[in-house]
Amino acid sequence: MAYGDIDQLAINTIRVLAIDATSKANSGHPGAPMGLAPVSHVLFNKHMTFNPANPKWVNRDRFVLSNGHGCMLQYALLHLFGYKVTLDDLKSFRQLGSITPGHPEAHDTPGVEVTTGPLGQGFANAVGLAIAEKHTAAVFNKPGYELIDNYTFVIFGDGCAMEGVASEAASQAGHLQLGNLIAIYDDNKISIDGDTACAFTEDVLKRFEAYGWHTLEVKDGDHDLGAIEQAIAIAKGVKDKPTVIKLTTTIGYGSKLAGTGGVHGSPLKADDAAQVKEKFGFDPTKSFDVPQQVYDLYAKTAARGATAEESWNQLFTKYKGEYPELHADLARRLAGQLPEGWQKHLPEYKPTDPAIASRTLSQTVLNKLIDVIPELIGGSADLTGSNLTRAKNAVDFQPPSTGLGDWTGRYLRYGVREHGMGAIMNGLAAYGTIIPYSGTFLNFVSYAAGAVRLSALSHHQVIWVATHDSIGLGEDGPTHQPVETLAHFRALPNCMVWRPADGNETSAAYYIALVSRHTPSIIALSRQNLPQLEGSTIEKAIKGGYVCVEAENASVTLISTGSEVGIAVDAAKNLKEKHNVVARVVSLPCWEVFDSQPKEYKLSVLPDGIPSLSIEVMTTLGWEKYSHEQFGLNRFGASGPYKEVYNRFEFNAEGITKRALATIDFWKDVKPIRSPINRAFQQLI
Amino acid sequence: MAYGDIDQLAINTIRVLAIDATSKANSGHPGAPMGLAPVSHVLFNKHMTFNPANPKWVNRDRFVLSNGHGCMLQYALLHLFGYKVTLDDLKSFRQLGSITPGHPEAHDTPGVEVTTGPLGQGFANAVGLAIAEKHTAAVFNKPGYELIDNYTFVIFGDGCAMEGVASEAASQAGHLQLGNLIAIYDDNKISIDGDTACAFTEDVLKRFEAYGWHTLEVKDGDHDLGAIEQAIAIAKGVKDKPTVIKLTTTIGYGSKLAGTGGVHGSPLKADDAAQVKEKFGFDPTKSFDVPQQVYDLYAKTAARGATAEESWNQLFTKYKGEYPELHADLARRLAGQLPEGWQKHLPEYKPTDPAIASRTLSQTVLNKLIDVIPELIGGSADLTGSNLTRAKNAVDFQPPSTGLGDWTGRYLRYGVREHGMGAIMNGLAAYGTIIPYSGTFLNFVSYAAGAVRLSALSHHQVIWVATHDSIGLGEDGPTHQPVETLAHFRALPNCMVWRPADGNETSAAYYIALVSRHTPSIIALSRQNLPQLEGSTIEKAIKGGYVCVEAENASVTLISTGSEVGIAVDAAKNLKEKHNVVARVVSLPCWEVFDSQPKEYKLSVLPDGIPSLSIEVMTTLGWEKYSHEQFGLNRFGASGPYKEVYNRFEFNAEGITKRALATIDFWKDVKPIRSPINRAFQQLI
Ligand SMILES: [Ca+2]
Ligand SMILES: [Ca+2]
Repeated sequence: MAYGDIDQLAINTIRVLAIDATSKANSGHPGAPMGLAPVSHVLFNKHMTFNPANPKWVNRDRFVLSNGHGCMLQYALLHLFGYKVTLDDLKSFRQLGSITPGHPEAHDTPGVEVTTGPLGQGFANAVGLAIAEKHTAAVFNKPGYELIDNYTFVIFGDGCAMEGVASEAASQAGHLQLGNLIAIYDDNKISIDGDTACAFTEDVLKRFEAYGWHTLEVKDGDHDLGAIEQAIAIAKGVKDKPTVIKLTTTIGYGSKLAGTGGVHGSPLKADDAAQVKEKFGFDPTKSFDVPQQVYDLYAKTAARGATAEESWNQLFTKYKGEYPELHADLARRLAGQLPEGWQKHLPEYKPTDPAIASRTLSQTVLNKLIDVIPELIGGSADLTGSNLTRAKNAVDFQPPSTGLGDWTGRYLRYGVREHGMGAIMNGLAAYGTIIPYSGTFLNFVSYAAGAVRLSALSHHQVIWVATHDSIGLGEDGPTHQPVETLAHFRALPNCMVWRPADGNETSAAYYIALVSRHTPSIIALSRQNLPQLEGSTIEKAIKGGYVCVEAENASVTLISTGSEVGIAVDAAKNLKEKHNVVARVVSLPCWEVFDSQPKEYKLSVLPDGIPSLSIEVMTTLGWEKYSHEQFGLNRFGASGPYKEVYNRFEFNAEGITKRALATIDFWKDVKPIRSPINRAFQQLI
Repeated sequence: MAYGDIDQLAINTIRVLAIDATSKANSGHPGAPMGLAPVSHVLFNKHMTFNPANPKWVNRDRFVLSNGHGCMLQYALLHLFGYKVTLDDLKSFRQLGSITPGHPEAHDTPGVEVTTGPLGQGFANAVGLAIAEKHTAAVFNKPGYELIDNYTFVIFGDGCAMEGVASEAASQAGHLQLGNLIAIYDDNKISIDGDTACAFTEDVLKRFEAYGWHTLEVKDGDHDLGAIEQAIAIAKGVKDKPTVIKLTTTIGYGSKLAGTGGVHGSPLKADDAAQVKEKFGFDPTKSFDVPQQVYDLYAKTAARGATAEESWNQLFTKYKGEYPELHADLARRLAGQLPEGWQKHLPEYKPTDPAIASRTLSQTVLNKLIDVIPELIGGSADLTGSNLTRAKNAVDFQPPSTGLGDWTGRYLRYGVREHGMGAIMNGLAAYGTIIPYSGTFLNFVSYAAGAVRLSALSHHQVIWVATHDSIGLGEDGPTHQPVETLAHFRALPNCMVWRPADGNETSAAYYIALVSRHTPSIIALSRQNLPQLEGSTIEKAIKGGYVCVEAENASVTLISTGSEVGIAVDAAKNLKEKHNVVARVVSLPCWEVFDSQPKEYKLSVLPDGIPSLSIEVMTTLGWEKYSHEQFGLNRFGASGPYKEVYNRFEFNAEGITKRALATIDFWKDVKPIRSPINRAFQQLI
């Protein structure tokens, strides 16, 4: 509890490293690291348990820097504690190919739990990490075996506090009484536009109180290390509420511009850097100069963490004797493996099976898998009965005091908080023991665009059950009918967008979503019933695209997804019967997966020599990649019974027939007709 | 203040109309209208001033139903008050082609101020409407001429209260001390997943207090009409804070399923509908049966509104005598016209002018136009210094008590609240006297996707100044570098996405954005300097696409946007010098605008017979529409100095040259090479 010169030296070392790295890069944010060095020194050394030698140890305390622009704080800490972040890595801050990019990226840098920078996301990720801990503890802990009892700490600034995604997550965390979550609000009264008085004058602590949080305050976050330590200790003791600590700090502490926006987003001037170093007792002529005592001090903390993990490993081995099945389950999850044989439970369909809405087909998959894959944790943004995401007999994840569920529960009531839900799912996925899935209408996945982007960038396995996927939702009308949404997420790298056409394709979508451990999936599902296709199998559909109806000497290939594939099949029949035209039909439920197939296979699906027409009740944007002509909806939809809406826009056998004939006619004098799969060159990846 | 049977009859008429319309449509949400009939009866008849004969009268009180699924409430009210919403329109509820779609759409239905349904949006729109009123009043009111003094009323439910976009807007409204904003929180304790106890247990009023709102409570919103009237009266009297009234109601009041989720999203069963009617004294065998007394009562309110507008018109005429310039300004704005000659102030550039970042070119445009177009109201989501959105000598829009600005101010400090900002801009645009523009990084326009979608759907003229538009932002890295964003918004109908390449194109982008009174624009702007192109003029660029470098007998057309056009021009020179290959260069700053040109013009830009290569440091998705081959970035970017990042991905003259040669080679044996402008058929619009 007593703090001395060595603590101040360590704190100032962090500050000076942040100055040096941003100066060398001539880019970056020194202010936040300089202001937050004291709290992070206390937090990491006095309160957190972690083992730099194994950043993936499951019971480590989690740390999230939600104001990710302050990442030199985190990089400096990781370096000082002995994570695989070297002094050279700090010297490469913000340089091409470094593991110290401009904002922290979890998949790049050992010890970074989640990717932050886009404001508000890290805060909501932390809520997900805390939920994951609560759940994992409830499932695996047994008397004498407190295997899981870590805390999640998150630092957030004014920017995060203003973002709606963080508000949503904070409300959720309060409802869930997450006593294992401790948030430190960096109240430095500065954001990019200057004094927060210009835009942000609310009472933050009172707001968090309204959400059901415990609130604390440390008035001198620059110097009062004891108060910081004590506040965190109190927070740890509050078991039935998350805690927020309002910590008043000075941005850019030590700089001539301390306490102003001038020190937020650009390196210190040379003379300012020099005077800070002198003031802190550092040699102003040296850079990246870390006192050995600081390394030594931090090594002690690291060693305590290593010992803690060693004890944990022994406990886990002992646990194996007493709870072999639970041990095997946790070990399997941590190894990133799915239960053996799980895929046998995926439902398969015959063409004679009845027409079923793909949201219902999705429900069937979930009902089958939920007992087989215990790490699946579901939810919905207040559309459970529409998304059909809740498995039969599911238990809600709720504080037991509510009487509505318990901590072992595997169904989350996210409320109408799509963005929060997306970011919380990223936290759930990041914890390491959970595969989250959750539902909303496809149109409202867009509300969560910021979180979906980070799922993709940071390789989180997150599954969106995106129902009501088109004008096929009917009466709710254009405000709820997605048109641009699939194009948006198809354009996002490392994101699988599925639009299954029937039962087998729905099973295939879940199969690939579940085996792809580093990629999020959005599964677009219909409200209306869809027939089981003659040509579909799970094996074919997991290739992302396949020939649904093959035909010799076809004059045209019809390419479609989801609810329109069945209509395309009808159109092919119509073309034959009424026009004696032979058409092939291709189903392309997932572009990203199809793209990853060998070229030979892709050309067998979309061959040379035949003009093609794509059919999807959405924007045509992007479909030129697979088809010569495109039939789509480059406008907003309409409110009405869905069949009438489909007919209004000619999405029926006749409407497709008309356009297929036009396509054949239009391409008849082009030689050779090349498949769009053929390209002049490959894209760089 | 005294309420009698006639009031109850009117309230029950609204309820019964909601039952009848949802029953006839066999679709919709009767519960909210039934619960909210009492408050809306009181609000519209006792507190609001409006003229159904002129729904666009500027000083009308604004009403927003943020929980737009309850729109039968609004349609019933509009009908009863005599707006152009007939009983037949109510009978066509949720039918194709009706003016009574499943959620209220402002451009469809007279009297609907803003399009709602996507939760949280309407609440934030209301904040925008209130800001617009404050500003317009401050600019135009003079002693004796209170031309503008309307209130904005918004009803919102639990769903809206949970959405981050509403939280952001509420925090902003509290900061801005918007005493002209009165929000009624429909506390019915039900959301789609059932009892709000499952996900939403925060103290809503306390949260609003924390934001700086005045809070009131009406405990019996089903019966206590007097208390409702009084609460609204108190709210009107609080001039320095927005007020929220927590109104406890029973969802589906009167139904057997009242107070449950069962009455939220589906029509009442026939027997239930019958018993409600009987209980309310209506003939259960009749439908859409409106008592004449109710029409008469509501006609009185409507007549009061007509008189109020008449007086207002007289006052406005008198104002003309005393303040002719202000009168002309307001009349012009209300007519939807821009000031004469404004476009002469758009800067023009010569190729010899220095290279300038397009965000800076945007700043120059804004600095020139801000004095000429007084209805331009700017802002930024806490990135003023980066977006360069604040005109020189701008005054902030702030409560005078803050000492930071005043109500005439034309620059809004939105804080880090992108989604709230987008929705507030929709409200500003909806008011009728303002053209809002505002800045954030292009990557974070995605946070506001829900609001941008509604700008497009409801025809709001809103301008996004979206800077830092690519990997060209450099060191901030992949978390901040958009890849999918342009494709996303290009896929959105009625949304113009601009990516100007130089000064003239930046002026063109603003020109079209400002003359397009019913379409939002996103102007993507660079952080890095861009050269002034030889071939660019404002006249050419306003066509959305044009030939930047023409050449006889060209072997390839290079098509590009923004920062890559200059590189494409360099590549064309390189192709000539090193490979003796002639290349044309096309700049395509706005697809949507280019698409609207005559086909002949489009073919002159992208002619038959020449293969083409598109170049943009973003996803290639969608570029197949204009080009035969595509060079793009179908992956996330990288953190580093921007020139290094560009070179890493080969976006330089050599990288383009290589691909241009591959394109020429690949297409040499295809006859004829058709311009992608040629299509087999036209899309339906
Ligand atoms: Ca701050
Ligand atoms: Ca409710």
